[in-house]
Amino acid sequence: MADLLWQKPGVAVDAKIQTFLAGDDVILDREFFLYDVQASKAHAQGLENIGILTATERSDLQRELDVLADDFRSGAFVLDERFEDCHSAIEARLTERLGDAGRKIHTGRSRNDQILVATRLWLKDKLLQVSALSREVAKVALDRAEAEKDLPVPGYTHIQRAVVSSAGMWWAGWAEAFIDNAVRAHDTFALVDANPLGTAAGYGVNLPLDRAHTTQALGFARMQISPIYAQLSRGKFELAALEALGGATLDLRRLAWDLSLFTSGEYGFVALPAQYTTGSSIMPNKRNPDVIELMRATHASVAAARTEIEQLLSLPSGYHRDLQGSKGAIFHGFGRGLAALELLPALLANLEWREDKLRVAIDSGMYATDVAVEAAVAGVPFREAYKAAAAASDTAGQGRTPEGSLAARVSPGAAADLRLDELRARWAALA
Amino acid sequence: MADLLWQKPGVAVDAKIQTFLAGDDVILDREFFLYDVQASKAHAQGLENIGILTATERSDLQRELDVLADDFRSGAFVLDERFEDCHSAIEARLTERLGDAGRKIHTGRSRNDQILVATRLWLKDKLLQVSALSREVAKVALDRAEAEKDLPVPGYTHIQRAVVSSAGMWWAGWAEAFIDNAVRAHDTFALVDANPLGTAAGYGVNLPLDRAHTTQALGFARMQISPIYAQLSRGKFELAALEALGGATLDLRRLAWDLSLFTSGEYGFVALPAQYTTGSSIMPNKRNPDVIELMRATHASVAAARTEIEQLLSLPSGYHRDLQGSKGAIFHGFGRGLAALELLPALLANLEWREDKLRVAIDSGMYATDVAVEAAVAGVPFREAYKAAAAASDTAGQGRTPEGSLAARVSPGAAADLRLDELRARWAALA
Amino acid sequence: MADLLWQKPGVAVDAKIQTFLAGDDVILDREFFLYDVQASKAHAQGLENIGILTATERSDLQRELDVLADDFRSGAFVLDERFEDCHSAIEARLTERLGDAGRKIHTGRSRNDQILVATRLWLKDKLLQVSALSREVAKVALDRAEAEKDLPVPGYTHIQRAVVSSAGMWWAGWAEAFIDNAVRAHDTFALVDANPLGTAAGYGVNLPLDRAHTTQALGFARMQISPIYAQLSRGKFELAALEALGGATLDLRRLAWDLSLFTSGEYGFVALPAQYTTGSSIMPNKRNPDVIELMRATHASVAAARTEIEQLLSLPSGYHRDLQGSKGAIFHGFGRGLAALELLPALLANLEWREDKLRVAIDSGMYATDVAVEAAVAGVPFREAYKAAAAASDTAGQGRTPEGSLAARVSPGAAADLRLDELRARWAALA
Amino acid sequence: MADLLWQKPGVAVDAKIQTFLAGDDVILDREFFLYDVQASKAHAQGLENIGILTATERSDLQRELDVLADDFRSGAFVLDERFEDCHSAIEARLTERLGDAGRKIHTGRSRNDQILVATRLWLKDKLLQVSALSREVAKVALDRAEAEKDLPVPGYTHIQRAVVSSAGMWWAGWAEAFIDNAVRAHDTFALVDANPLGTAAGYGVNLPLDRAHTTQALGFARMQISPIYAQLSRGKFELAALEALGGATLDLRRLAWDLSLFTSGEYGFVALPAQYTTGSSIMPNKRNPDVIELMRATHASVAAARTEIEQLLSLPSGYHRDLQGSKGAIFHGFGRGLAALELLPALLANLEWREDKLRVAIDSGMYATDVAVEAAVAGVPFREAYKAAAAASDTAGQGRTPEGSLAARVSPGAAADLRLDELRARWAALA
Repeated sequence: MADLLWQKPGVAVDAKIQTFLAGDDVILDREFFLYDVQASKAHAQGLENIGILTATERSDLQRELDVLADDFRSGAFVLDERFEDCHSAIEARLTERLGDAGRKIHTGRSRNDQILVATRLWLKDKLLQVSALSREVAKVALDRAEAEKDLPVPGYTHIQRAVVSSAGMWWAGWAEAFIDNAVRAHDTFALVDANPLGTAAGYGVNLPLDRAHTTQALGFARMQISPIYAQLSRGKFELAALEALGGATLDLRRLAWDLSLFTSGEYGFVALPAQYTTGSSIMPNKRNPDVIELMRATHASVAAARTEIEQLLSLPSGYHRDLQGSKGAIFHGFGRGLAALELLPALLANLEWREDKLRVAIDSGMYATDVAVEAAVAGVPFREAYKAAAAASDTAGQGRTPEGSLAARVSPGAAADLRLDELRARWAALA
Repeated sequence: MADLLWQKPGVAVDAKIQTFLAGDDVILDREFFLYDVQASKAHAQGLENIGILTATERSDLQRELDVLADDFRSGAFVLDERFEDCHSAIEARLTERLGDAGRKIHTGRSRNDQILVATRLWLKDKLLQVSALSREVAKVALDRAEAEKDLPVPGYTHIQRAVVSSAGMWWAGWAEAFIDNAVRAHDTFALVDANPLGTAAGYGVNLPLDRAHTTQALGFARMQISPIYAQLSRGKFELAALEALGGATLDLRRLAWDLSLFTSGEYGFVALPAQYTTGSSIMPNKRNPDVIELMRATHASVAAARTEIEQLLSLPSGYHRDLQGSKGAIFHGFGRGLAALELLPALLANLEWREDKLRVAIDSGMYATDVAVEAAVAGVPFREAYKAAAAASDTAGQGRTPEGSLAARVSPGAAADLRLDELRARWAALA
Repeated sequence: MADLLWQKPGVAVDAKIQTFLAGDDVILDREFFLYDVQASKAHAQGLENIGILTATERSDLQRELDVLADDFRSGAFVLDERFEDCHSAIEARLTERLGDAGRKIHTGRSRNDQILVATRLWLKDKLLQVSALSREVAKVALDRAEAEKDLPVPGYTHIQRAVVSSAGMWWAGWAEAFIDNAVRAHDTFALVDANPLGTAAGYGVNLPLDRAHTTQALGFARMQISPIYAQLSRGKFELAALEALGGATLDLRRLAWDLSLFTSGEYGFVALPAQYTTGSSIMPNKRNPDVIELMRATHASVAAARTEIEQLLSLPSGYHRDLQGSKGAIFHGFGRGLAALELLPALLANLEWREDKLRVAIDSGMYATDVAVEAAVAGVPFREAYKAAAAASDTAGQGRTPEGSLAARVSPGAAADLRLDELRARWAALA
Repeated sequence: MADLLWQKPGVAVDAKIQTFLAGDDVILDREFFLYDVQASKAHAQGLENIGILTATERSDLQRELDVLADDFRSGAFVLDERFEDCHSAIEARLTERLGDAGRKIHTGRSRNDQILVATRLWLKDKLLQVSALSREVAKVALDRAEAEKDLPVPGYTHIQRAVVSSAGMWWAGWAEAFIDNAVRAHDTFALVDANPLGTAAGYGVNLPLDRAHTTQALGFARMQISPIYAQLSRGKFELAALEALGGATLDLRRLAWDLSLFTSGEYGFVALPAQYTTGSSIMPNKRNPDVIELMRATHASVAAARTEIEQLLSLPSGYHRDLQGSKGAIFHGFGRGLAALELLPALLANLEWREDKLRVAIDSGMYATDVAVEAAVAGVPFREAYKAAAAASDTAGQGRTPEGSLAARVSPGAAADLRLDELRARWAALA
């Protein structure tokens, strides 16, 4: 490993301990590398603005940072176990190439605020993706709700047949759900959109750092003012971001459950294109909807990431090394979460309803609520009408059709009054 | 128990099974009772608007609902195991007092949307409390930050002495934290501020329910359009609310950790009024800061509530009885969470710093960063300056004072530039 | 409230703070009351053995403790908010009735070891119940496996039809699962079967307490030797017990999922007696398997209890008030968990298979694995045989019967060789 | 990627979907590779025993499996994204080298039971490590308890000074804790020590597989009889193993908290060798106990692994692709957990007490309990004695010494009667 920045002369380094301390931290840092380069460029300009760097030093640093970013992207520079972390690696490279200018870059900053700012930029990008993917999902759902608003499907409660429903209602439900998920991702983006750079190790520094510059240069909406709070937000903001993602993956879990049942032999309501299925190593007859199952499993990874960070965060204020664990957690949670959300719009666009199977599953008892409500409209107190319909529930549906039931479902939001325009208006306002 | 609404003639009821099904559900429903009364009044007006109820029936129902609410508040009516749940209890009472008008009240609604709307109103109230209490905490913190901005306190990282800090910085950190907590509670309030009443059992109903009226009468910002989504939001919105609360209780956990250490014999930085402490049953010498410890423990209850709901929510769309478990969970989480937040402003306002102990804990090594940065300003590359200061870290602080260190801490947000005005402006914008 | 044991003269008590500190602790203590009485009797004898109490004092104390236990059981004594906790209540009563003998009972003990010993006895009882109920479940499953070993049922992977299976195999699976659950409950019982009484506040005491006596009198297998560890085991043992319970409730969750699907309209494999179902407030046609759904939901409560305790336990050694939260958690987790397990044996004994529906769900593709393996036996390399069977998977089953497939399933544990004798032998060894 | 075993002709494969399905599964499989080789060798012998393979085929397969294992260890064979998983990779290699013998190896087994058996063998190894490391920790603690039984240290409750304690008591507490942790790991080992190989895809197979042979050859204590239960134990056994590990890491979290406080400037009780500490990038004065902090953080990773698996396991019986997520979870949990436990014995052996600091922290109030108990022995009812000692708590300790207090602490397990022999006997019985 390269020399440790903070190593004191004469103090032994134990390899086994260093391995434990490092974990896979530097490998994880590959996710943060380019964000740290970006923040280092802003910091360099900030240092010039207060006279710590000359214009030449600043421009040399920024140029070398750009070169390093290119080398990283091309694979010419590999971030690996030679380094303690991405921050040390970048400083070492700048010093190697530029000498004293490199030795100056860390003036007024700490790895603590470097990690914070890189994480913050990363989280903002990920939340934008959650928001954009949620909007895509909602778009597919809105379009299919419109197209299939008259397709009857059985409606369930308790996984038991309940009343006639429509594909339009089903899609509209997911549309409204993912509109909310986009809203939440956006709110969370706004919550974390605050610049921690310039708070050093959590107590500021005896330099008039140009935090206004770095805030603007890095595209933050505001400065995170308190250095104490900058440290307190480590983990807290990661949790908020995972929770926003979790809103979407929890809906996905329920959606995947629907599809897992709908694609079973017993339901048979939905057919998936073959590329969404896999086979078995021993059973020649199988086509399994593995994509749906892994989508259903996704929320578990997001929840695990939350647990890891939340359990760490029983600590006094200030930085503690425990927080290192939050890094792998967000990569795991967002890695799995976004991978699943990315496949979702196409899967939804491509699934096909089997109308015959849907129709067979609508049995005559499913009209009993219609019957009772009609009697209520005719003046029978509902509770009486309910009892009469219950007594006749097997036969009450005779002569009724799914189409007739849907056409009469006029309560706002129901099959005959889906109000897709209102949902489309909320969707459009997301952009 | 009173007759079950849905009971079919000739079907045996097993007492042991009914007990299992009921759990403590009806007792928990006491929290929801008045919200259901409120929603029932709005629903009655909605039914009159579409001709299901006469004006007389509607006014009779509303009057009896008011009487029932008064009886509930006074204890004249007790919600207990005689009833399956608060919804059945209310319908039974209306029928007992009003006959057919009572039998009509359930027209077009299901217990499913009754529970949803009661929960929604309850969550909105609780989120307002989180927001208001977060603002109160921030206010105390801002005031004390101003008053104690020059009081030196030791600053820590890794629970190890790091640099000189100030009480002003510490308070400002909590102020900014709780401003964010109020923002988040407010965002979550807006997310859940959608009316589910009128979605029946999740598929709407064959009646043109006046959902616009109930939305307005119950004070919702918008209608939750899709009946499918209304059901999908059961649990989802509870989780979002708990997560918003959890942002605050997680900060509280860290704040309580600070105070737990600060009130120890070893630190001795903070004195708490005696009423915040308790004694031991065997050790005559003890005064224990139990309030602080229970505050620290609060987040565990919020996390447990999240776990309970999240684990339930691996289900297809539609209502399932599993969701009953979400009720106790939110009562437990918000019950403990708000109880702790309610005590916090006064505790913070009343704690006293022990200046002598604070000063003793500031050792000479804590000036080393100042020394290194000064050298950097004088032109020594920071990495060189760091090494020199490290070599001399025990002695470098000679002649320096905490006050001098704080006066030079001019980076934005640090001791000499706290920017309380900016925090106060964000605080004021919360109202 | 009664006087606080530890109250110092002249220190104000703030009602709001006392309410926060108390929470519902004393109400929860009702679960522990009789265990504390039992431990107090043992402690009194121990004190006589070392000369702190006279024989008369000891016998007076034991007699009054018995009276108090009777009063508690009969309702003549109610543990409520007048008391800080059950420990204070018992001491107060003894002092009221016996004067100085009552004032002596607390010699050499702390509420810390009182809570520990009461919790320990409670946990042991609950683990015995988990073990006994798991054995009952396994018994029903073994009996039905024997009785229904030839009943064909479809076997699934990925909720997709896979191969022919049998009711016998399905039951044998749950039998082996619940045998393991009983083993685990038993192991955990042994782990926690150690007496903490006599460790005082976690540091022992300057008295030669007769811990051998209390260990024997309270039925513990061994003494928990270290007072430090007695405190460290607070929460740790609760977690271990909840985890043992969780093994069973997690299996229950999967079993309930099977039954939830099997009782649906689409599967229709299983009929439940009507008393296990409920109706809807609006849909007259519904019979919902709520018992199954609440069984499925049970693990969420156990998991929530785990979360609550685990999140608390980020603490240094020694007692902390945070741990109070562990009490409500175990009551909630075991309360819900045992309630569900208690209903399970009868539910399993009473469910009925619908043979016609089972048979219809066995389609011809489900013989493809049989076909491929037969070819392998005939010398075709399996991977070739697999491909051939896959190509012919829709037709390969022609002429085959479920009975034929089951009769040939001779691998140990499979339908034709269930090895119920071996399972029965493991079951018998549990007793 | 190599051909997929189950791929049907003419079905398109979508690269993006395959990437999602694969995740990092094949990379994770590196952990399982050698276990699968071992199980494949046993399976080959089993197939010979029932006449599916000739002796030559079996010996060819076993030889090539040995060669493959050597190639894997040496790096000559790399398991990477060319393969779907380790199982496919091994079969492909055997087929490439041996032709039809390779095509026969999968007869009578499924990837489902291959994964199960590999996981089972892996878990057994890991539990042995937990057990062995727990014993090592207990050994160091027992030795230091003996050596330092007379060293006074302050005893705390609520992080407040309570009574005089000893290093001996502190060490004995951790000794007893880790003896229990070893017992639990051992119990869990016994629980999971059952052979799933030969259960195929969860329904057995139409071959008289020699499961007795594979059970014996792979060193399992018993056969897992039911194929249904073999599938149900996926995840369940992983959770049980993580919970056993979690018992140890939870104790470690509390131990690390002690050390984190003890190494702080305010306590100063413990000195760590320099190699256990690190520095800061900006603060030249810092020596931070990062090893202790990462040990404290370890339990969060174990808890996260639990969460990931537990959240997945809301499924009907049978295999589901969701379960793939359990693999990464156990690697993460055990990876971090064992890494921390491995460093612990040496860290404990090397830490040094600062006797002067310990002594200073023992204040005179800490004798108050001794005083009250002495009065109780002299006949004053304890509750009276308590009040008197409380009134005089600041002065009661005058003339008393830590050594005197410890010498009088004669309750079993306390400083003057540590009962290390009994703990050593339990420790010895672990081996």
